[in-house]
Amino acid sequence: MTQAVPAPAAVSAAAGAPALIALDWGTTSMRAYLLGEDGAVLQGRESSAGIMKLPAGGFDEVFDETCGAWLDLALALPVIAAGMVGSAQGWLEAPYIQTPADASALVGGIVKVQAKRGVTVHIVPGVLQPGMLPNVMRGEETQIFGALAGDASLESGAQGALIGLPGTHAKWAFVSGGRIERFYTFMTGETFSALRDHTILGRTMRATEHPESEAFVRGVDTAKDAGHAGMLATIFSTRTLGLTGQLAPEQQADYLSGLLIGHELRGLNEVLAREQANLAGKTLRLIGNDALCERYRVALARFGCNDAKTVALATERGLFRIAAQAGLVKSAARAG
Amino acid sequence: MTQAVPAPAAVSAAAGAPALIALDWGTTSMRAYLLGEDGAVLQGRESSAGIMKLPAGGFDEVFDETCGAWLDLALALPVIAAGMVGSAQGWLEAPYIQTPADASALVGGIVKVQAKRGVTVHIVPGVLQPGMLPNVMRGEETQIFGALAGDASLESGAQGALIGLPGTHAKWAFVSGGRIERFYTFMTGETFSALRDHTILGRTMRATEHPESEAFVRGVDTAKDAGHAGMLATIFSTRTLGLTGQLAPEQQADYLSGLLIGHELRGLNEVLAREQANLAGKTLRLIGNDALCERYRVALARFGCNDAKTVALATERGLFRIAAQAGLVKSAARAG
Repeated sequence: MTQAVPAPAAVSAAAGAPALIALDWGTTSMRAYLLGEDGAVLQGRESSAGIMKLPAGGFDEVFDETCGAWLDLALALPVIAAGMVGSAQGWLEAPYIQTPADASALVGGIVKVQAKRGVTVHIVPGVLQPGMLPNVMRGEETQIFGALAGDASLESGAQGALIGLPGTHAKWAFVSGGRIERFYTFMTGETFSALRDHTILGRTMRATEHPESEAFVRGVDTAKDAGHAGMLATIFSTRTLGLTGQLAPEQQADYLSGLLIGHELRGLNEVLAREQANLAGKTLRLIGNDALCERYRVALARFGCNDAKTVALATERGLFRIAAQAGLVKSAARAG
Repeated sequence: MTQAVPAPAAVSAAAGAPALIALDWGTTSMRAYLLGEDGAVLQGRESSAGIMKLPAGGFDEVFDETCGAWLDLALALPVIAAGMVGSAQGWLEAPYIQTPADASALVGGIVKVQAKRGVTVHIVPGVLQPGMLPNVMRGEETQIFGALAGDASLESGAQGALIGLPGTHAKWAFVSGGRIERFYTFMTGETFSALRDHTILGRTMRATEHPESEAFVRGVDTAKDAGHAGMLATIFSTRTLGLTGQLAPEQQADYLSGLLIGHELRGLNEVLAREQANLAGKTLRLIGNDALCERYRVALARFGCNDAKTVALATERGLFRIAAQAGLVKSAARAG
């Protein structure tokens, strides 16, 4: 269930003494990091025991299995955790803090749970944006503060910056002055899977090994251009372009993916338009796995946005930064 | 598999001699009607043998089972059929005719298949709208011409009329001068099912016996109002309104349904806006089952449209009208 993950070569050289155990504990998986005094990753371990897939021994068993060896070596290491581990179904609920949220508000919302082996685990709260269309995040707030750490350009600029976290439930956060001002959730990844696997659209698709980049871009452009009747209408073209010989079965999944990501960015652009702004004029960062961020970079370029960089190690940096701000690590050196 | 359906009392009194066997043969079911000289329904039979659920004997077996008794009584009855029975997976493929399409174009596209018992079955073609976002229909074209039959007001008016056919794949057709000018397909029903049954949104829903009308309207209004980031974002509020105690588990399915229907109508309204028109100013008709049409009427009212009438017997009337125009029935009396 647990396996060691090699520490990234680039940072492990910077080593230093172990200073913090940092956990990214989500619904379907858990990642544990042993961080040095300067925030560098010394070792990493990964477990499939997300909070919905716990073994009989629960949170304690997973914690022992992933972090026991580290704690045996250095019993006094502080422990910080973020993600669904702080939800109502988690180890201990860390009630949401509300937007606008800065790092010290996150620190103020930390809850502590005593692990069986005596160690205190500090759980970072999620963020809630109240209102008519409420939004919630758990884990992404930590990644966002990781992205802000050591990137001064993100905090400057009159309009602030936009940080995108593509995935099952993609998030786009508006940050400025070191705060998460507000954010949106797009069910892009999960809707894609549901449409592909459980509607007529999947029936004419054929799997392929290589990405169909042209079809992906075509989907993005179709969603972006105004001449359609909205997403419920455009998605049907995945089928009808196939029926009329304009889209091969191998291209249909990437076309649909492009459509949905295009509709996501179009929706975001409409929010910006109401504020006399647009994607092309914003400072953007992406957090996520490289392949998915690359898809978003391609899609963003269709919206005139060509400088969306992917932030590396956002989770590890975020956990270290919050731990430092909470006084859990002696050195408050930035994980830049 | 086959069961008799009582003829609607209101029209069976108008009887007359049997003149036509009319089949509405879709993917998951088949309905057969015995129509009189004036188009009135004399008898009806229903089978679960849609084209994807055929018995070993195929189309002939289903045809014999549903219509054999009628043919035994009056061997010379002409037979007309519409729907997926004319698709590539059907009894015989009736290639699509293209928009703009009038009734005589439909008649010109009829293909004939010889049933084993010697009778000729006339299959009405579907309609294709070519282009960058192609659209196809099979069966709905017949219902639309049924709606036009005997309703002069639909064909008048400078802007023509809009006919909506809610369902798994909802259609909205622009008709004028007795033609289907163009149409849109919205995957509203199928997307709703996929989101409810195969995403996180369904997990917090609780089934209820009575419709949650208030939650439905709230969903429609949310989708209609401009202040959001598009459908991929609004649907997530089904969950977050629940998390924040603003939407009970029993209300979440109807809220999501309202959201999707609202996004459908918003998309349609945006098409109209590009033509300096809007839903509130259009002549509208709905074709479909009463409960679903009633939901759409409620939703349309939120868009300022209060006179969307449901057309009764559109399928039967459409089949009779096309048969009459094809010379299959001697009396070309309108099924008004």
